[in-house]
Amino acid sequence: MRMYDLIMKKRNGGVLSTEEIRFMIEGYTRGEIPDYQMSAMTMAIYFQGMNKKETLDLTLAMADSGDHLDLSGIAGIKVDKHSTGGVGDKTSLAVTPIVAACGLKVAKMSGRGLGHTGGTIDKLESFPGFHTDISEETFINNVNNIGLAIMGQTADLAPADKKLYALRDVTATVDNISLIASSIMSKKLAAGADAIVLDVKTGSGAFMKTEEDSVKLATAMTEIGTGAGREMHAVVSDMDQPLGLAVGNALEVKEAIDTLCGKGPKDFTELVMTLSAVLLMAGKVAKNMDEAKALCEDVVKNGKALSKFKEFIAAQGGDASFADHPEKLPEASLKIEVPSPASGYVQHIACDEIGICSLILGGGRETKESDIDLSVGIVLQKKVGDQVKEGESLAVIHANDPEKAKVAKERFVKAYTIGESAPKERPLIFRII
Amino acid sequence: MRMYDLIMKKRNGGVLSTEEIRFMIEGYTRGEIPDYQMSAMTMAIYFQGMNKKETLDLTLAMADSGDHLDLSGIAGIKVDKHSTGGVGDKTSLAVTPIVAACGLKVAKMSGRGLGHTGGTIDKLESFPGFHTDISEETFINNVNNIGLAIMGQTADLAPADKKLYALRDVTATVDNISLIASSIMSKKLAAGADAIVLDVKTGSGAFMKTEEDSVKLATAMTEIGTGAGREMHAVVSDMDQPLGLAVGNALEVKEAIDTLCGKGPKDFTELVMTLSAVLLMAGKVAKNMDEAKALCEDVVKNGKALSKFKEFIAAQGGDASFADHPEKLPEASLKIEVPSPASGYVQHIACDEIGICSLILGGGRETKESDIDLSVGIVLQKKVGDQVKEGESLAVIHANDPEKAKVAKERFVKAYTIGESAPKERPLIFRII
Repeated sequence: MRMYDLIMKKRNGGVLSTEEIRFMIEGYTRGEIPDYQMSAMTMAIYFQGMNKKETLDLTLAMADSGDHLDLSGIAGIKVDKHSTGGVGDKTSLAVTPIVAACGLKVAKMSGRGLGHTGGTIDKLESFPGFHTDISEETFINNVNNIGLAIMGQTADLAPADKKLYALRDVTATVDNISLIASSIMSKKLAAGADAIVLDVKTGSGAFMKTEEDSVKLATAMTEIGTGAGREMHAVVSDMDQPLGLAVGNALEVKEAIDTLCGKGPKDFTELVMTLSAVLLMAGKVAKNMDEAKALCEDVVKNGKALSKFKEFIAAQGGDASFADHPEKLPEASLKIEVPSPASGYVQHIACDEIGICSLILGGGRETKESDIDLSVGIVLQKKVGDQVKEGESLAVIHANDPEKAKVAKERFVKAYTIGESAPKERPLIFRII
Repeated sequence: MRMYDLIMKKRNGGVLSTEEIRFMIEGYTRGEIPDYQMSAMTMAIYFQGMNKKETLDLTLAMADSGDHLDLSGIAGIKVDKHSTGGVGDKTSLAVTPIVAACGLKVAKMSGRGLGHTGGTIDKLESFPGFHTDISEETFINNVNNIGLAIMGQTADLAPADKKLYALRDVTATVDNISLIASSIMSKKLAAGADAIVLDVKTGSGAFMKTEEDSVKLATAMTEIGTGAGREMHAVVSDMDQPLGLAVGNALEVKEAIDTLCGKGPKDFTELVMTLSAVLLMAGKVAKNMDEAKALCEDVVKNGKALSKFKEFIAAQGGDASFADHPEKLPEASLKIEVPSPASGYVQHIACDEIGICSLILGGGRETKESDIDLSVGIVLQKKVGDQVKEGESLAVIHANDPEKAKVAKERFVKAYTIGESAPKERPLIFRII
């Protein structure tokens, strides 16, 4: 078998066999197939696509390129949750303790992420002592005992995906549904959960800008998971404006704690409850959405959700008392209001731009080596559809550097479109698959 | 400017500017743009194509990536000739002395080539002492004095093309008209001739299998040359069966000498006369094809063509007496007839297969390092349309190794299709552009 022939076959619209895809991924992982052949292949895939079987084969080959997490030591159905990411997306922080409090086993592997804010792990590090570099044994014990553990992604999980993604990133071959779906799912499959719930974002702040593309991606990923014998569910949710009000690491943790106590923002609470309910169904804890949502509302009301969160934080070395006293979490020295330049309705918020403001303040990573300032960020006071008067505050910027605050503030104001009429309402949940 | 953005632009169907193409080719030649980005780009070009302006810009950027040959020391119009290559293509050996004998200045740069037989230079080395590693000064003097010189391709002529072709060759991005045309023309433009005549082959033994594709390639190349201010002509000629009767280095030299003496095979003679006439028109030696052909026929009849050939061989160190005594040229020890397995008409000859027989006998190079046996090859006795009786000889195989001869003979017979009816006649010259 020669990589040249496989490139030619795909270029000419052919279908790669399971053996051919294995040969390609194994050879590439070992460095026997050079980058220049693989990038020609990914560009050919961009134009010719991959069918369902090819996409599944590619995912399985990448999942098999490194270690598989063995979760057989955990009794019952193990569930995992994945979000395609967006601005103010602190969903995992609230969803996982809620479903664990309902009796579900959540074995989640998380990354740090490059972006507007840190990833789930960075946010959780707002609790002094909390860490995710736990052994597989501790991970499994914690899931068995508490129902929830979060582990940092190990280096050897789907190394083929890591190498291929880095190549696609510099050769303009990222945006292909099969390649995106297989990249995400290869890591999820290697992480070993029985059931996986995907939160696929859609809108200006998401990777997929249209509902159609987001549904396509969600469908491709669920098909891969089903093909690999996993129970799959997906929710397509809005990311055309930041989720909730808080953007920034410790600020998002506070909002998640509020939500666990039943005092979260409306949109964020709705998404958390929906995803939690879908997770409970995936894990066979509830039979239908109504039953599942009622269970979730119960654990929020009776305080079990917050208790589970504290139990989880403590089990991974964190100071859980911070969850009862969120004022102890990292706090920025400057709090600057952003007055509205006009009166009217908030018609649109350029979601990506709000993320960039958080990055400017120091809340995210520009490169892998960047340090994150957990305390900075933005708390929105007006969201799309809200009425606002000229001079009234749109948001509060939390900063530690006046210069950065100034730049972020200027950029923030420009991200808002304020007009005379109320905008058309946009759903929060587009689709449950 | 970033290569990433250029790949994305082309992938999305955009048109690259002159500056962007220069940036890409200069960066790639210097090694600043890596192979993996360039191969993603060539695959994107494969799918999205390049317009005329982009193709010209690419050609000029590659031509400018190395040295330009300065032919200003040669008085009058300097012409060059290029063939896209095929089996039994010894055209340059006969055409160049004919037109030089008519007063044209031929400054030709030739390669050795990887293929069924050697290139023009290898064939000419059948004359003891002949060499093409002459200085630019000698090259120019010889063109001025004799009207003909052939020089080996220097290393620094269009190095960008050399690097890019090697990459395309291993990433399945060779067959795109713009990339093929710019590759050939970048070297031709750097070689400095004022007028260029292209012999674009078509058929089973050619790179372009259909007349339509061959005309497209011929048109793309003439447009590039015209855009670069050169006088351009192209002939699209048949390569659905070997050209002439001889395939093999010294065997082809003998056939070329026969043709210079007016005793060449019909098809080869017709092509030589047509190309020679087009060259004379390109060089303004003749006003129309009839006049040009008459001039060429004259120099063959009166012996001036053969004299010019001998003069040229001698000027580059070769023993020209071999041209009067072709029996002194390298000769194989074994001559084996290939009897026809059936009676009927030769309906088709798998042209590529005949080339492979020559390669098996040792007449061509499989890798750059291979040695060529100048004496071996095949002399056809039956061509498409000829009647043949069972047992009658189809060809004579010239070999030095009985084992290789056996393999070549078996393969040779299979390349012939012999049937009851005469095949439809196929033109030798498809188009003159």
